Amino acid sequence: MRYLITFSYDGSNFNGYQKQKNGRTVQEEIEKALSKINNSKTSFTASGRTDAKVHAINQKGHFDFDKEIDINKLRKALNSIIPKDIYIKDIKKVSSSFHARYNVKSKVYIYKINIGNYDPINRNYIYQYCKLLDIGKMKEAINYFKGEHNFRSFTKVEIEKNFNREIFNASISLKQNIITVSFKGNGFLRFMVRNMVGLLIEIGSNKKGINVVNMILDAKDRTKAGIIAPPEGLYLKDVFY
Amino acid sequence: MRYLITFSYDGSNFNGYQKQKNGRTVQEEIEKALSKINNSKTSFTASGRTDAKVHAINQKGHFDFDKEIDINKLRKALNSIIPKDIYIKDIKKVSSSFHARYNVKSKVYIYKINIGNYDPINRNYIYQYCKLLDIGKMKEAINYFKGEHNFRSFTKVEIEKNFNREIFNASISLKQNIITVSFKGNGFLRFMVRNMVGLLIEIGSNKKGINVVNMILDAKDRTKAGIIAPPEGLYLKDVFY
Repeated sequence: MRYLITFSYDGSNFNGYQKQKNGRTVQEEIEKALSKINNSKTSFTASGRTDAKVHAINQKGHFDFDKEIDINKLRKALNSIIPKDIYIKDIKKVSSSFHARYNVKSKVYIYKINIGNYDPINRNYIYQYCKLLDIGKMKEAINYFKGEHNFRSFTKVEIEKNFNREIFNASISLKQNIITVSFKGNGFLRFMVRNMVGLLIEIGSNKKGINVVNMILDAKDRTKAGIIAPPEGLYLKDVFY
Repeated sequence: MRYLITFSYDGSNFNGYQKQKNGRTVQEEIEKALSKINNSKTSFTASGRTDAKVHAINQKGHFDFDKEIDINKLRKALNSIIPKDIYIKDIKKVSSSFHARYNVKSKVYIYKINIGNYDPINRNYIYQYCKLLDIGKMKEAINYFKGEHNFRSFTKVEIEKNFNREIFNASISLKQNIITVSFKGNGFLRFMVRNMVGLLIEIGSNKKGINVVNMILDAKDRTKAGIIAPPEGLYLKDVFY
């Protein structure tokens, strides 16, 4: 029996989503809770990883249990034993051929930037940039990310087969000194959103022109791109199948 | 030379505002930073204390320095050495007779309650009540707190001269499953806001009727009041002189 769960987490105190030798991870905590309830070692597969300090609003993932279970009871049981910085929002039964990573159709990431005064209360949840940004330029520049591109310049330098990704939607809004940048795409490479946001910040602060977006996409070379925005402003907002 | 500062803090990792033997406090961190810059032990007096895990948006306090200083430079210097969960928003020179606690004319506290699904990202900043509340009843009930009352039933049982406080304004609003309760008054006793909010929650959840507000005020007895709301939803929003 395969189950799909929707879950959220505060990334502040995690060394990222993916299980590893050192540091607390979201995957480890979920597997620990599932294994306890299932009474046997249970593995969990998310739609993809998020890095240290990155948050998730509607992350998704699947796991297998031997027997059928009451999903409402399971949800309550999981939330009662899982640490308070993770929350299981929803569980549903899926076919055994469903795969939480391979079946992803699109994902939405948002990134929050404070251009007002430093706010200690939100320091782990909104990037405290605290300087003016030209939002008009950023809105113009973000359009160049839309469509299908080779995003090699916007990811960590590592061997990967295919750097092509399609951005379906990209937008920027401003509300009370908080800029929210939003991307919807068929997939995102490692650090891709934070690298795109970093470049948008450089454009909004007049360090780079709008024309650099295409130049950097064309270069297919990470060293040609800009700064990387810090992790705490980033949220995996939605995953669609 | 006396200076008044406006500062904000994330109360999550503090054992309250006021200096004490055990635990990290806001006062201690500010005095440490001031003393370092002043090159001699400098004490700091806030408008009042806040309890462990309670936040402040515009807390105020004063300190004395022997010599005149450039307040912009001082603000930058303080923020560069103070921990990231405190922020000095503003500094201004005041007369040597000014006192940050004795001169308070009014204070505003707000309290945030989530009546939607549990949100791990805001768990330290909004009380995760996560059940429905009858906001109409709460709005009606909060009116009974307005005006001058003896708030003995709403504070910790301890010897204090005067339990009379005046609430100038009290309101409740709802936005996307977050209830914000706001009180403006000439002063607040210890735990008073959290006890008032606790009672409002009991009324909103139909555990108590609206009529109990006056009954409990009249009783002047803490044991007659209701539950205390947890600290993480509480913010000292403003202090007026």
